[in-house]
Amino acid sequence: MSLSSISSGSTGTILQECTAAISALNKSATPDIQARLDNLTKPRGSLGRLEDLALRLTLISMAAGRGNLPQADPARIYTCAADHGVAARGVSKFPQEVTRQMVFNFLNGGAAVNVFTRSSDVELRVVDVGVKGADFADTPGLLNRKIAQGTADISAGPAMSLQECISAVELGISLAEQAANEGIRVVGTGEMGIANTTAATALYCAYLDLPPETITGPGTGLNEQEIRHKAGVVGRALQTNHVELPPADPMRTLAALGGLEIACLSGLILGCARRKLAVVIDGFISTAAYVAAWKIHPSVGDYAFFAHGSAEPGHSVILHHLRVRPILDLGMRLGEGTGVALAIPILRAAAAMYNNMASFADAGVSGSDDSA
Amino acid sequence: MSLSSISSGSTGTILQECTAAISALNKSATPDIQARLDNLTKPRGSLGRLEDLALRLTLISMAAGRGNLPQADPARIYTCAADHGVAARGVSKFPQEVTRQMVFNFLNGGAAVNVFTRSSDVELRVVDVGVKGADFADTPGLLNRKIAQGTADISAGPAMSLQECISAVELGISLAEQAANEGIRVVGTGEMGIANTTAATALYCAYLDLPPETITGPGTGLNEQEIRHKAGVVGRALQTNHVELPPADPMRTLAALGGLEIACLSGLILGCARRKLAVVIDGFISTAAYVAAWKIHPSVGDYAFFAHGSAEPGHSVILHHLRVRPILDLGMRLGEGTGVALAIPILRAAAAMYNNMASFADAGVSGSDDSA
Repeated sequence: MSLSSISSGSTGTILQECTAAISALNKSATPDIQARLDNLTKPRGSLGRLEDLALRLTLISMAAGRGNLPQADPARIYTCAADHGVAARGVSKFPQEVTRQMVFNFLNGGAAVNVFTRSSDVELRVVDVGVKGADFADTPGLLNRKIAQGTADISAGPAMSLQECISAVELGISLAEQAANEGIRVVGTGEMGIANTTAATALYCAYLDLPPETITGPGTGLNEQEIRHKAGVVGRALQTNHVELPPADPMRTLAALGGLEIACLSGLILGCARRKLAVVIDGFISTAAYVAAWKIHPSVGDYAFFAHGSAEPGHSVILHHLRVRPILDLGMRLGEGTGVALAIPILRAAAAMYNNMASFADAGVSGSDDSA
Repeated sequence: MSLSSISSGSTGTILQECTAAISALNKSATPDIQARLDNLTKPRGSLGRLEDLALRLTLISMAAGRGNLPQADPARIYTCAADHGVAARGVSKFPQEVTRQMVFNFLNGGAAVNVFTRSSDVELRVVDVGVKGADFADTPGLLNRKIAQGTADISAGPAMSLQECISAVELGISLAEQAANEGIRVVGTGEMGIANTTAATALYCAYLDLPPETITGPGTGLNEQEIRHKAGVVGRALQTNHVELPPADPMRTLAALGGLEIACLSGLILGCARRKLAVVIDGFISTAAYVAAWKIHPSVGDYAFFAHGSAEPGHSVILHHLRVRPILDLGMRLGEGTGVALAIPILRAAAAMYNNMASFADAGVSGSDDSA
């Protein structure tokens, strides 16, 4: 796919160069990789989805010119934070200042994503893409890249200008470039932004032509009545912004309904596809960033892995729509990159299996009667 | 439950002492633990099943007198190997000598469970409970505890004598004692034994009163016709051994239909319950060992975690019957303890969450409007 779906006025130079450089994953080595998998000391296919993960990680390594073995380390999660004007519409159980407070929590190492990344030996970078208030003090692991003081209320107009959206996407592309240049092999998405399930829901409705009530959910814990209110806010956002269904220009939709952190993650996903890095998508919000990236260039799917099925009910609808199956299903709905941090050890085990298991011949183990 | 379900002639002294010392998990601290979970910096319940895992690990620590924090390290898997006489009935794609060959593979570090335990930083012990042939040479990580040269063909008579079965169970109990005394906090089950899905299926049929055709599956890769043959072998094993449904004496059933490695794992599970150690059950075969242990003492369920749903089709039937949900669902069907090795990082993350996440008060994060 080319840039045909992005109107010329809605793409920056960096974004244009990035999407032009994305190509589908070359899968011609699949039979050779499968033959190696089948010759490892286990019944054929008995490692199930681990074998699929190992296969795709290997194809990605080969496509990137990094040899013919899968690599899952080092891994790094970018947890991108921004505020949302729609928080003023009462769509979250938490006040807007929690976005900023949680960034402090990330920087102090006390949030779930900190604990899980330490437990899984994954690097964490926190990116201020648009948190309300002053810049954060320089802190190891923090990237101060504020593009705006959050978005505007999407139920009253566009979230951001097209230029701000391009800047956020291009920031994400630059993060992928940085990761690739620093030798990172697996990138994960994470986010923090009070009210961002509302923005994500609006994006799903627009990109996938879904009615708001089918995918609007409790987010941080709304009750039935509050969910109906939230679905109404999403509906107003779609109307107010005159969203075309399906959108002719995915970047304009992202600017109208998205969030700064979501746009940044869309760029991160595009940038990973460009640099042929495996990218692990977290939950409900991150998957909305993925859908935006996928609408901009569908080949991002070749490089993407879905960490977990979120307990946010709309997520299973979306994953089904995308025809993807997540690695984990643990009833989580926290975001931040927490699902990615738990899924990366599975990718690591898949790569280690391919790289380090003995073959039947090496180990002197008899094959099955099928392989005789 | 007492030993009432085991006839006095079918229990050794060690087994008798073990089951007498097993007690249900004291859950009185649940509200306090839940309050702490709810005060960590995340929406209430948003870590889903990780919260359930952390809760139960904490109750186990408290019951064991190891303080009031959950512990998932150090973790160790016992991969128990033995041969099965029923292999002669053509119920596996692999010849019987593969059991022995795979033990060599374990000792050389080339099998899937070796790779996964290294990847997950879990200790591995390989136990020869009844592999045909001479003892293995002394090797680090190997326990030479051969009780017999495999079992007899269950379709023609009992798998083993009651005394052999007691010895295997008591070996498992001693492994749990050793683990507890060495400071292990999580024990995992693993197994290797050509034809042991046949033994496991027979045990399920007997303990849970299920017809063979409902749970007999492909194991290492049988086709439809071969599966029907295998179900017939299971049916003959039930008839030949005059298995009562439901069995009045679970030990006699285990001796008639089980495997030496399965009986050892049943003992390991009982021993973990006695020493109040978390025990993680692997797939189809390990769950049969669990069912035997559960029939001997139902409180083992309080200490057990189910690593993954196996692709062996009967496993989901059994887990549903037991009303348990596995941690992972990755389409694997290899055994060895591979599912456990992948699930332990999840338990570790759950414990780390409880132990290391900041509270709302600590982090200066505003609570939800429900908690105000």
